Amino acid sequence: MSPRRPKPVLAPPTDDDMWAVRETTLDLDALALTESIFALANGHLGLRGNFDEGEPRALGGTYLNGFYESHPIGYGERAFGNPEDGQTVVSVPDGKLIRLLVEDEPFDVHRGHLDSHERSLDLRTGILERRLYWTSEAGHTIRVTSRRLVSFRQRSVAAISYEVEVLDEPRRVAIQSNLLANQAGPGADVAFDPRRAAALGAVLQSCLHVHDDLRVVLGHTTKRSGLSLAVGMEHIIETDDQPLTRTESEPDLGRVTISAQLTPGRPLRLVKLLAYHWSSRQSIEWLRDQVDASLENGLAEGFDGLAAAQQAYLDEYWSIADVELDGDPEIQQALRFALFQLVQAAARAERRAIPAKGLTGPGYDGHAFWDTESFVLRALLYSKPELVRDALQWRHSTLDLAKVRASQLALEGAAFPWRTIHGAECSGYWPAGTAAFHVNADIAHAVGLYMETTGDEDFERDTGAELLIETARLWASLGAHGADGQFRIDGVTGPDEYSALADNNVYTNLLAQENLRRAADAAERHPRPAERLNVTSKEIAGWRAAAELMQIPYDEQRGVHPQCDGFTDHELWDFESTGPDHYPLLLHYPYLQLYRKQVVKQVDLVLAMLVRPDAFTAEQKRRNFDYYEALTVRDSSLSACVQAIVAAEVGHLDLAYDYLAEAALMDLHDLEGNVVDGVHIASLAGAVVAVVSGFGGLRQHGGTLHFAPRLPSGLQRLAFPLVFRGRRLRVEVKQAEASYALDPGGEPLQISHWGEDVTIEGPVTLPIPPAPALERPMQPPGRAPARRRG
Amino acid sequence: MSPRRPKPVLAPPTDDDMWAVRETTLDLDALALTESIFALANGHLGLRGNFDEGEPRALGGTYLNGFYESHPIGYGERAFGNPEDGQTVVSVPDGKLIRLLVEDEPFDVHRGHLDSHERSLDLRTGILERRLYWTSEAGHTIRVTSRRLVSFRQRSVAAISYEVEVLDEPRRVAIQSNLLANQAGPGADVAFDPRRAAALGAVLQSCLHVHDDLRVVLGHTTKRSGLSLAVGMEHIIETDDQPLTRTESEPDLGRVTISAQLTPGRPLRLVKLLAYHWSSRQSIEWLRDQVDASLENGLAEGFDGLAAAQQAYLDEYWSIADVELDGDPEIQQALRFALFQLVQAAARAERRAIPAKGLTGPGYDGHAFWDTESFVLRALLYSKPELVRDALQWRHSTLDLAKVRASQLALEGAAFPWRTIHGAECSGYWPAGTAAFHVNADIAHAVGLYMETTGDEDFERDTGAELLIETARLWASLGAHGADGQFRIDGVTGPDEYSALADNNVYTNLLAQENLRRAADAAERHPRPAERLNVTSKEIAGWRAAAELMQIPYDEQRGVHPQCDGFTDHELWDFESTGPDHYPLLLHYPYLQLYRKQVVKQVDLVLAMLVRPDAFTAEQKRRNFDYYEALTVRDSSLSACVQAIVAAEVGHLDLAYDYLAEAALMDLHDLEGNVVDGVHIASLAGAVVAVVSGFGGLRQHGGTLHFAPRLPSGLQRLAFPLVFRGRRLRVEVKQAEASYALDPGGEPLQISHWGEDVTIEGPVTLPIPPAPALERPMQPPGRAPARRRG
Repeated sequence: MSPRRPKPVLAPPTDDDMWAVRETTLDLDALALTESIFALANGHLGLRGNFDEGEPRALGGTYLNGFYESHPIGYGERAFGNPEDGQTVVSVPDGKLIRLLVEDEPFDVHRGHLDSHERSLDLRTGILERRLYWTSEAGHTIRVTSRRLVSFRQRSVAAISYEVEVLDEPRRVAIQSNLLANQAGPGADVAFDPRRAAALGAVLQSCLHVHDDLRVVLGHTTKRSGLSLAVGMEHIIETDDQPLTRTESEPDLGRVTISAQLTPGRPLRLVKLLAYHWSSRQSIEWLRDQVDASLENGLAEGFDGLAAAQQAYLDEYWSIADVELDGDPEIQQALRFALFQLVQAAARAERRAIPAKGLTGPGYDGHAFWDTESFVLRALLYSKPELVRDALQWRHSTLDLAKVRASQLALEGAAFPWRTIHGAECSGYWPAGTAAFHVNADIAHAVGLYMETTGDEDFERDTGAELLIETARLWASLGAHGADGQFRIDGVTGPDEYSALADNNVYTNLLAQENLRRAADAAERHPRPAERLNVTSKEIAGWRAAAELMQIPYDEQRGVHPQCDGFTDHELWDFESTGPDHYPLLLHYPYLQLYRKQVVKQVDLVLAMLVRPDAFTAEQKRRNFDYYEALTVRDSSLSACVQAIVAAEVGHLDLAYDYLAEAALMDLHDLEGNVVDGVHIASLAGAVVAVVSGFGGLRQHGGTLHFAPRLPSGLQRLAFPLVFRGRRLRVEVKQAEASYALDPGGEPLQISHWGEDVTIEGPVTLPIPPAPALERPMQPPGRAPARRRG
Repeated sequence: MSPRRPKPVLAPPTDDDMWAVRETTLDLDALALTESIFALANGHLGLRGNFDEGEPRALGGTYLNGFYESHPIGYGERAFGNPEDGQTVVSVPDGKLIRLLVEDEPFDVHRGHLDSHERSLDLRTGILERRLYWTSEAGHTIRVTSRRLVSFRQRSVAAISYEVEVLDEPRRVAIQSNLLANQAGPGADVAFDPRRAAALGAVLQSCLHVHDDLRVVLGHTTKRSGLSLAVGMEHIIETDDQPLTRTESEPDLGRVTISAQLTPGRPLRLVKLLAYHWSSRQSIEWLRDQVDASLENGLAEGFDGLAAAQQAYLDEYWSIADVELDGDPEIQQALRFALFQLVQAAARAERRAIPAKGLTGPGYDGHAFWDTESFVLRALLYSKPELVRDALQWRHSTLDLAKVRASQLALEGAAFPWRTIHGAECSGYWPAGTAAFHVNADIAHAVGLYMETTGDEDFERDTGAELLIETARLWASLGAHGADGQFRIDGVTGPDEYSALADNNVYTNLLAQENLRRAADAAERHPRPAERLNVTSKEIAGWRAAAELMQIPYDEQRGVHPQCDGFTDHELWDFESTGPDHYPLLLHYPYLQLYRKQVVKQVDLVLAMLVRPDAFTAEQKRRNFDYYEALTVRDSSLSACVQAIVAAEVGHLDLAYDYLAEAALMDLHDLEGNVVDGVHIASLAGAVVAVVSGFGGLRQHGGTLHFAPRLPSGLQRLAFPLVFRGRRLRVEVKQAEASYALDPGGEPLQISHWGEDVTIEGPVTLPIPPAPALERPMQPPGRAPARRRG
């Protein structure tokens, strides 16, 4: 997309080095990128990849999943049903800070001479390492090696190993390890971009600060949202010298200062342990106890113990998640980075949301969207289904709020929020927020996929059935049978944010249809929860009738599906007159114009063809894909990955490859120029899905895995595991054939390969039909993806 | 509409008393009503009907047309093209205040005993009189008679004659005449109602306060909008005694205190003169000079001189504007009240906007809307065309802002604001603001009517042609020819605010069609302005083609025009389940629901049938009217008047009468419960039009007056004058016949009567065909208008 100049910030991967993301020299102009790329998180706690010494920085940040401040939402004109309270993720006290004084000179990358500076994120160990050699103005040379992790095993704990060595002759150094609350942000952000976070200023109010020996604990509360937070740091000092130490605490600052005489060859190592606990209910005293307990557990493990556990966690993950792609090291590395970010975002979220940026930055105010169910959970489905379950249980835990919201909107059932942290709708612009009701069907779709994949009966009975039933009730009340008997859903917004408030959005209607059917099935399969929810047989019959008669508009004249009623009659966007500097369009044109014309921000009808592959013929898919290609500008990061999949399906393999590259490199190459706000978790997830469902040709429907794999000419081999109903299936795709093999033991697995049913017991190798010769479809001028090959 | 309990606050009119609005006892609960009803204004200066002593009050207010403060508009989510600055009318220093102390007791209606209290607004003299007898706690009885006017002749001047008499024995009284800035408002308005004004607090900053003898002048500026204001008061004291006086000034207060010994039978009379001048350019010193000059002119005239001029102005007005309606004194009085409010709102507006509330209250932030052109100017057209011209010249003076706005919206020509004071768009909710592009065609329509009515060639050349051309350019860029060649206008909002962002709104498209044609005609008639505006023959041909091929959707199946594409396919609003306490719907349901369903806030398609009567057959009109009757809830004051007209046209005469009554009594009976914010100027205008175009059956198209008069059975006679092309035509309608007579002199006038061309030279009397027998159409449950008869 237009300012898509790959920045050569990160070292390119090599054949030996596709498991790490490296920066080999320091580029201060790229901090916005590297702070997000090198962020560490575990789904509960996230630390941006800021330097140990804290500055320079593009954006400092430490985030706790679910910890937010609320603020009144302003409106030019108030209206009934508008959410009045917004929620914004808050940066919690920064425990990453370790500042260093060499003799009397502060170590600062701006001062003296940085002889070398390297950072590496190892995707197998989960550790961010930084190694630097620095010579001070006075000519003293030191080495600093810091290693940082956010523990997958102990979710509240992060640890830093900070090693400093003098290289020339004995020197005295002072190390200050800080815990700093209400850190001042960067300069006021005056540029207009609605995708950035609301600036709230210093929102943490101190209620506790204590210190003892090398430990400090700070307690804070938020002003409006009423959340409490305790954060502690503890230290282990390993050095030959007997260092002088001082520990202090103030309302917004904890500090441990260590002064030591160092000798060349005898580095000082400081291990810093951090623990974060927050609650909306517990007292600050309780939280303080938890912090002290977590620190004690961390002490018991030490950095090395935590690092070993980290590696063990990831070893297990890679064994069920790694996607191998031969022929393109850059994409191979990017896919592993994506898989790593997925687990960073979700691993220990445990019934909290998975925000659009994970815990890597404050973009979109830290909100979670439909991205979670439609992209992230889809990517976790066959490797970490328990994380899918957790995320759906988070939705379930917010069901009361969703029912209140539905009632406020004069609807039945549950209306889940378009964007939220805590569960209440936070969208301040309803045509692209509340009206995007498809989020409810996306949740139901994820419920269905999870249940089919795992056969988790407990979940279905206790959680899934209720989610399906309450969302089905929403659709039943939102739509109505028209004079022709067809069930219409009018005035809603589909995935494409350049259209809004239209009738019979195909994506929405197809997903609602499935939602209604699944709810009817679930209610019949689980009479007890259905009874508890007062589901009657008449209600079930109503759901089935609505699904049966769901209106799916089709433009006979043009032979394509209109995205919604009348869409294909609208004027085409004047792409010829739209210069490259006018993208993304939403920053240069009013919604008024975008909504009225045929221009697509992100896949909508094309996404429908991925999610409901059964609802379209092959010919319709091809025609629809080509039609919407010419309209889709990809001003959203949620588009390229889906275009990759459907392009592969209809036979545009090279185009699919181009889109895969765009999705996979979105963050590593900062293609949208906004990685500073955090990585695009859904696009990363989409890149994984793009390979598996695109070139791997995987679709899951009717409870069966369907494969139609096919590689573009530039790739030699694709291999990935899938855990389905407790069995691990390994899929390997080459140019002319695909192999399927199950881990030993258990029942055989029925799949389909290019439309043919196959029973997998032992390994099976099957031929791949050759790709059709098709003309490459056109994108809007200037909006074609970068060519990956040729 | 639903809490429509006529409040018996005002005395009912009698056969002898249809020229005054009277309140014969004091009802403090009705201050919200009476302050607006008894407001005086001249289009430049407006004084709410507050008591002389200032309190108790519902809402104090003194307004100057065009004087506003700006403020940032908040958005939940910012977006390109949103107006960032709002404008809100500001209450300027209050010069109405005259407080009275009788011996040591303040005159306060809450204290002592109010023996009688009567207020009367005389529509022929333009004077508000208050007469009261009050006995203090100590038993002293006084009479106070105050008379107040806002001069039509001297636009900056208001005058009060305040007479106080002791009735029992000699007493000492003190009178304090104040000029008070930044008067505290009533308690914070916590109730949610988007129609009320933004609360800005004290926004006037003092820059001058001087006093001399009995005169005080205060100067202020606004904080953000940068406007300057000077206000002065001067006094004449008429009394037998030699009173003691003191004059003071402070930054926000001017005060003249008069202490006098009064004797029964020898009242003291204080004449207070007020002058208001403001500017965005002139210095405060200049404005002060203007204030002193205006006060000097006022002194020269005295109260009685100003009162005589006032009456002379109104005598002339009534001779060309009075509508006589025999058989319903209440409506007769209400029509005269409406005509009076029209001239109060417009008389001296002189190239400033005519706000929705006139200058009687702060509702809608003091903004002007399309109401001006579509309702107010229509009512002034045949009596005060020069005021129509002034108002259109105001629009023309804001053309540069409208062009900038169009360009910001990626459109050509001019996009006039949905709501504004100064000319810039102030709508903070674009789907019901900017997207309501019909305002541009409404302006063009008013230009056309004015030109046809007056033949004012100078206006057409200097002002009208440019307005037509720049609005035609807007339509040409907003619409496009579809695959079928038809010219479509997609994604806009019509007059009905319970629908938004729809394709091919019939009202909008029909008015745009006329706009395009009129622009083409004007450009061809006036080559010089057309050349200056770079109009080419190709552009003109494009306008004609767009008009020719304008898409007008029609629902063949139901045999009605859908308000916009797909409207009649939408689910019907569930009126049965909507309780009377849930109106107006906008305060109880989200727009999301209102937009998706068939429910109409105010006439839209029915208004199209009034404004473009030529575009519908008689049968279509009847069917359309009945169809939309069942959907229209009249949550807007801009509906009943139009329903009255079209009901009369299609033959529902009794229903027309009911709607006329609702429109005419909107304010006097406070039918919407919000008169406190000011009177509904457009509804008042609509009531006048409802009689003339409804029972009078007047339409103007093709440059000709068409009459199809017919009275409901409850009325005996309707008579009204019309000035058309400089000739005064008198129309008199009775049950069975109508008479037309021209003032002597000049050319004969061609009109049509019930479809037959008639040339009026001498008086002509023609028969009226009997009304058809029709079934009364249904309104939504609970939303039928109150029956006027039977």
